[in-house]
Amino acid sequence: MGGSQILPQPPPQSPGSGPRSETIHRANLAAIVGEIHGRGELSQTELVARTGFRRGLVKQLIGELTELGVVSERSSTASGSPGRQTSLVEARRLGAVVLGIEIAVDSVAVAVVGLGGSVLGTVRLDRPRGRTSVDHTISDLFEMVERLLERTGTREALVGIGVGVDGIVRRSDGRVHLAPNLGWRDVPLGEMLAEALGATVPLVVANGADLAAVAELRRGAAALADNVVCLSGEVGVGGGVIVDGRLLLGVDGYAGEIGHMPVNPDGAACGCGSFGCLETEIGENALLVRAGHSPRGGRSAVDRLLVEASVGVPTALSALETTGRWLGVGLATLINVFNPEVIVLGGLFGRLYPFLAASMEAELDRRALRPSRNRVRVVPSGLGGDATVIGASELAFEPFVADPIRWRQSRPGSPDAAP
Amino acid sequence: MGGSQILPQPPPQSPGSGPRSETIHRANLAAIVGEIHGRGELSQTELVARTGFRRGLVKQLIGELTELGVVSERSSTASGSPGRQTSLVEARRLGAVVLGIEIAVDSVAVAVVGLGGSVLGTVRLDRPRGRTSVDHTISDLFEMVERLLERTGTREALVGIGVGVDGIVRRSDGRVHLAPNLGWRDVPLGEMLAEALGATVPLVVANGADLAAVAELRRGAAALADNVVCLSGEVGVGGGVIVDGRLLLGVDGYAGEIGHMPVNPDGAACGCGSFGCLETEIGENALLVRAGHSPRGGRSAVDRLLVEASVGVPTALSALETTGRWLGVGLATLINVFNPEVIVLGGLFGRLYPFLAASMEAELDRRALRPSRNRVRVVPSGLGGDATVIGASELAFEPFVADPIRWRQSRPGSPDAAP
Repeated sequence: MGGSQILPQPPPQSPGSGPRSETIHRANLAAIVGEIHGRGELSQTELVARTGFRRGLVKQLIGELTELGVVSERSSTASGSPGRQTSLVEARRLGAVVLGIEIAVDSVAVAVVGLGGSVLGTVRLDRPRGRTSVDHTISDLFEMVERLLERTGTREALVGIGVGVDGIVRRSDGRVHLAPNLGWRDVPLGEMLAEALGATVPLVVANGADLAAVAELRRGAAALADNVVCLSGEVGVGGGVIVDGRLLLGVDGYAGEIGHMPVNPDGAACGCGSFGCLETEIGENALLVRAGHSPRGGRSAVDRLLVEASVGVPTALSALETTGRWLGVGLATLINVFNPEVIVLGGLFGRLYPFLAASMEAELDRRALRPSRNRVRVVPSGLGGDATVIGASELAFEPFVADPIRWRQSRPGSPDAAP
Repeated sequence: MGGSQILPQPPPQSPGSGPRSETIHRANLAAIVGEIHGRGELSQTELVARTGFRRGLVKQLIGELTELGVVSERSSTASGSPGRQTSLVEARRLGAVVLGIEIAVDSVAVAVVGLGGSVLGTVRLDRPRGRTSVDHTISDLFEMVERLLERTGTREALVGIGVGVDGIVRRSDGRVHLAPNLGWRDVPLGEMLAEALGATVPLVVANGADLAAVAELRRGAAALADNVVCLSGEVGVGGGVIVDGRLLLGVDGYAGEIGHMPVNPDGAACGCGSFGCLETEIGENALLVRAGHSPRGGRSAVDRLLVEASVGVPTALSALETTGRWLGVGLATLINVFNPEVIVLGGLFGRLYPFLAASMEAELDRRALRPSRNRVRVVPSGLGGDATVIGASELAFEPFVADPIRWRQSRPGSPDAAP
């Protein structure tokens, strides 16, 4: 996963058992928690099959996780076997939750998500383009986090914080190297947020589009696929690429910047310093200008444009068709380079999908290599605008899932349990 | 690894030991052979350190591999310790060899390579553009293979055959789906070659540019790097991408077709059916035409162009500069998408490197995102024109390295040992 981890010191390990058997024990707990997080709920039999553990060991681990307040068991009538009861293990509601945070150009969002992926509460704040400074962003987030933890009553259950930001984030330390559309450069966001929120749980920062890809893979349109490209964005265009089930990071974690592939040698200047990038051809501003609107109108201007398109205004339809063609050029590169099974269009492109699908597909027919073209499905996101916060919460759960005892031991009621 | 395997039936496993301990034993042998193949030679102490096996087990495995004729031991004076003797384990010359085969547009090549990577003999046949049919190719290769095995005296030591072809190869069955510059479509190359050569050892087919990337990674300019893009070609332009140490294949093995990224919306028609692909802008023909030569002049025409450039003929220099600029556009996409540590330029681009480096680097400065741009090194191939045959031999060694007994047991002197 991309993103740095700012880890507080763990509580001491339990005494009385050797460090090696303790390590194995924690890995066993992690395997069970990982399965339950991925599936939401599972029977004991399924857990035995999926982990390869003995039934007795599975029972013992479930018992321990129940005591920790992480999972609970309930009886269920097995489908197809009327009268026969099965014991299902599920994530306990409010047992362990994380904060997923998204910092986009025209909004910030926070979600509280429980183990297993249930969204317990979200809040999104649209903001004028002038309010994107680091200080404004952090103070907005502080208030939103406080309110949301209060409203959902989850402060004591918090085990991690994940942050997705529209920018180039270095994996090793979570520094935002460059976020052109936010106007940020060299911001130690992880450190600053951890301090502002008083975080005593791991806080991890990654690129927002990468996290949207993780969300699509685990909870969305690309579930079950191993080779996936996710393209999303509004003003900026970002991407996350999944190669053989793993997020493509590159040597420093900067990979996947598909918004900055040069596609038009004669194109307009881009915020990144280049010109004719995919982002300058398919981003929100180019679309608005092509349709005869003024740029920087934001989401509401795009909504108006979509209304125009749906009643057949020619300039709107033609602008969407042109955007679809350029999108097709960019996707042809990605199809030829990655041979993906699924391409997921999120954010702006999920909303535009019905109007640009035809011209995009036509361009793919002209430009993508036949065997890869025939294989790929291009679909709109099923998660809509929440893909990044959901991906951020997946990232936030990783330290907890990897070692549930470490991030649970001091709870409940510990004074340093939450920001 | 990309490529299909056409595997003859293995000889029966040795009797008298359970199947499970036999499996472990073979895996242990494989670990030793893999280390020796990767490094050429190693001391027993190094083998113990690298495998984590007990010294006694290492000794026993070396003894067995010595008996099989795969490795041999020799004494050496340890550096820095005059007088102190170390026993070095090395691949035995002619102990186990493979054939590496390359099918390119204007030449075919065969190499005999020993365990550890020593090249024991190569032969390359330049051929007119009209002699690229499947039948011609197979009959040329049959003669070349026969001559080379004879000349090197390696027929009995053959343990595998690897083939790299300038085309889109399906991983599951090694079928060449499309090789536009050869004029091939839907050719069951693996099957046909295995039959023509009478192969009784595994024969594996993969994309030539992918294999060049594997060669650069294991034996060339990208050794020790985990995130690498290799761009090579002559008329066609191909690529191999290494992500976290593994070859990028995509869902069907078609990934890495970087020659067919659209870079110029107004560009010329490409053999793939699209237009303005990277290949149409930087391939051999575009270069020759820009320099005022006729296209399809092949390697000798490029050599003349390089002579012109070295004495300062303006049309030649300007053509190379333009090629460098388009190469920079294509590499900017790859840098932004993959954040690689190294980009290796092979084939034509290795030879052109001194003349196009400046314009290429200038284009990268304009178009690649700063942090990824600053990290990447763009270097010419150290393996030159032989990268694909060397990569094909690496591929060919994989089944043997994974299970040395299986592919050695019937040797030496077995009548079915070689094509």
